[in-house]
Parts: sequence; C-alpha cells; structure tokens
Amino acid sequence: MLTLYIGNRNYSSWSLRAWLLMRQAEIDFEERMVRFSDPEFAAKIARLGAPPRVPVLVDDGFVVWDSIAIAEYLAERFPQAGIWPAEQRWRARARSVCAEMHAGFAALRKAMPMNIEAHLPEVGASASAEVRRDIERLVTMWGELRSAHAGTGRFLFGSFCAADAFYAPVVSRLATYEVSVPAQIRDYLEAVMDLGAMREWCDAARAEHDFMPGEEHYRKAPD
Amino acid sequence: MLTLYIGNRNYSSWSLRAWLLMRQAEIDFEERMVRFSDPEFAAKIARLGAPPRVPVLVDDGFVVWDSIAIAEYLAERFPQAGIWPAEQRWRARARSVCAEMHAGFAALRKAMPMNIEAHLPEVGASASAEVRRDIERLVTMWGELRSAHAGTGRFLFGSFCAADAFYAPVVSRLATYEVSVPAQIRDYLEAVMDLGAMREWCDAARAEHDFMPGEEHYRKAPD
Repeated sequence: MLTLYIGNRNYSSWSLRAWLLMRQAEIDFEERMVRFSDPEFAAKIARLGAPPRVPVLVDDGFVVWDSIAIAEYLAERFPQAGIWPAEQRWRARARSVCAEMHAGFAALRKAMPMNIEAHLPEVGASASAEVRRDIERLVTMWGELRSAHAGTGRFLFGSFCAADAFYAPVVSRLATYEVSVPAQIRDYLEAVMDLGAMREWCDAARAEHDFMPGEEHYRKAPD
Repeated sequence: MLTLYIGNRNYSSWSLRAWLLMRQAEIDFEERMVRFSDPEFAAKIARLGAPPRVPVLVDDGFVVWDSIAIAEYLAERFPQAGIWPAEQRWRARARSVCAEMHAGFAALRKAMPMNIEAHLPEVGASASAEVRRDIERLVTMWGELRSAHAGTGRFLFGSFCAADAFYAPVVSRLATYEVSVPAQIRDYLEAVMDLGAMREWCDAARAEHDFMPGEEHYRKAPD
C-alpha cells in the first residue's frame, strides 16, 4: 500500500504536485497530512527515514522523497499510468520542464508563494522585472508545448502528465495573484483548474484555515 | 552524435555533473564550452532552444536541458551504461538523493560555491550553523549509503552512478574549503577525486584562469 505524506494544502506546492499526479493517474494511496505548524513536523518525517520536507511517499515501508524521484518511482511502478508522455523525446522534454520547475522560477516562487485561499491582485500588479521574466518564460514554454500538442488535448503534452502536475501550483499562483496571460495560456490555466482532483485539493485548501503567519503578511498590505 | 554544452570548468558545478556522468559511463560526446563571461552566453544557449543555463545536451538536433533530465535521457538511451543502480529500490533512492541535491543544500551552495582552483580553508573554518547542518546531512546520507554498499565498491551505491556525479561538485567544495569529515566519508571523497574523469576536469579547471570577479571575492578576505 502507498502512503503519501503531505503538508498544508493551502501552502504546500510540492505536496500538491505529487498528490495531483497520483490522483489524476488513478493510483490508489492513503494520505497523511503533517501540518507545517506541527512542532513535531521534522521528527515525524525523519522517522520515515527522509529529510524533513514533504511530499514523502512510502511504499510498503520503502521511503521515496522529493517530487521528482516520486514521479520516476510511480512511472516505473505503474508504467501504464501515463506519468510521462509515451514518445521518447516528449518524455525527455517533460522531464526537462519538470526539472526546470524543480530548481527554477526563484523570483516567482519567492514573490508569489502558493496561497490557494488568498486573492492578492495587488501583488500581481506590482510584479518585479525578475518575476515578469519568470512569467514570460512560463508563457513561452507553455505556449510552445500547447501548440505542439494542440490536436491531442488541453495539457502541455496533450494528455495530462507529470509536467502538468509540476506546474499546477504555478497555475494556482497566477490565479491568486491575478496575473494576466495570453488567451492560449488562459485556456491552459482553465484546463488545470478544472481537473477534478485540482478542484478537490483547492476546496480542501480553502476549508483548511490553518494559517501560517509568515505566509500571510500580504493580508496586512491593504490596511 | 551527442554534444554537451558546458560552462567554465572552475565554477560550473552543474556542467561537471553531466560531463562526469557521461565520461564515467563511457558515452561518446562532443564538448562545447560557453564561457559565463561570454556576452552572448544566453543567446547561444537560447539558439539551441533551451533556457539560458548549462549543461545542455543536444542529440542529433534534439535538446535536453537540466542535469536531472539529462541523466534520465542518458539512462533511457544507454540502458547498459549504469547511469542508475540496477535494483529498483536503490535506483529510487539514487533519484531521491539526486533530487535532494538538485533543489537543496542552499546554505552550503551559497557559502561554498564550487571553485576548483581555490583553497579557502578560512571559509570552511567559519561555516555558519546552516552550512554545518547541510554538511551534517551529507555526512549522514553518504555514510548510510556507503555502509549499505560497503561490499560492492567505494561509491554511494557501490559502483559509480548518477548520484556520485551529482555529489562530485560537493566533494570538490569540501576539498576547496577544507571541511573536516569522518574517516568513512574521507574515503568516499578520495574515491571521487581519484576518478580519471574527475582528475581530468579538475586539471583543466585549474588551467582555465578565466576568473569571474563575483566568484573570487574570498581572495580579498585575507588582505
């Protein structure tokens, strides 16, 4: 049996990636939330044998950490689940864009952390040049991939795959911070936000009300 | 034919990862250096169709960026090259530790950037608590992996694999900044520094003399 350890739904973008991928791929798993506010957070994850971050996947006692390694583990364990595109070069490209997300978009991630229940258009309106460059890169990359797969579906590689799961928290950020994007990209954002599992995660995030003060400083801005 | 685009040997830790992996796996490739000081750096990489970072692998016109995606691409294209451990769970673990390197060890990377030709023990001696925590994590993880594979070789998973390539620049940092580690870990550092391809890279890095002022501020410290 697979168990996925996740953090707070409202903030934990990396948890969302693994969770959404598993749900969309129809892989059965049990879910355990370890709240960021839990003073035992690091100890609980360390007891699994992983560094103190979420998500962590445990498969019959074997621990897999980091969303990239979790995606590869699932692709090997469930080869028919469509974790990666079937064609070799598109699969490589999907891995490139996932890895780019994994270590990149630092300005965007810092200025616009995932915060599903919030609505902060003033932050989007005052984006720095670095953040705008990150957004331009997203628009270019998503646009190229969508154009290349226009005939086969609404996702980056036609059908939903790990690359969409990796960018889903960014899609959520663009909504939270009301970032305006070209029409082709708006359609992609809608496709992601309309996924059944994405709606379920976001609804639960909005119901969570477990606010982390450090993530909610924007709330004070309009006062 | 495969072409690997790399940055300056002295500084580009991500280039070293891909280059060392390919050399140790005995994969033929052509190498092209794009110097960080080249005003056309971003434009040259962009012309390949990749974001402006190294390494970039080009296979017969198809571009693969990011060292994680390059490792997976090589593993698919050269299944006998030993890019990942053969056993499924060790392969998963190797991916976890590579992904941990890819997005982690921020304090260590910031305080102790790769700088092969330098020798800066004073920086190692004054490491912050955050840097020491990163080093402790390395020592724990490397120690556990080495103990689990003690009978099969000197590397993290016995034989050399992508995980060793991913940590090779960290091994180089521990030498540059003269960080002291337990005996078991010293043996691992020696195994990595003794690799033929690692020696070749480091010799070329020391002969490079293409210094980036922003990376050389430590040189002023003892004045």
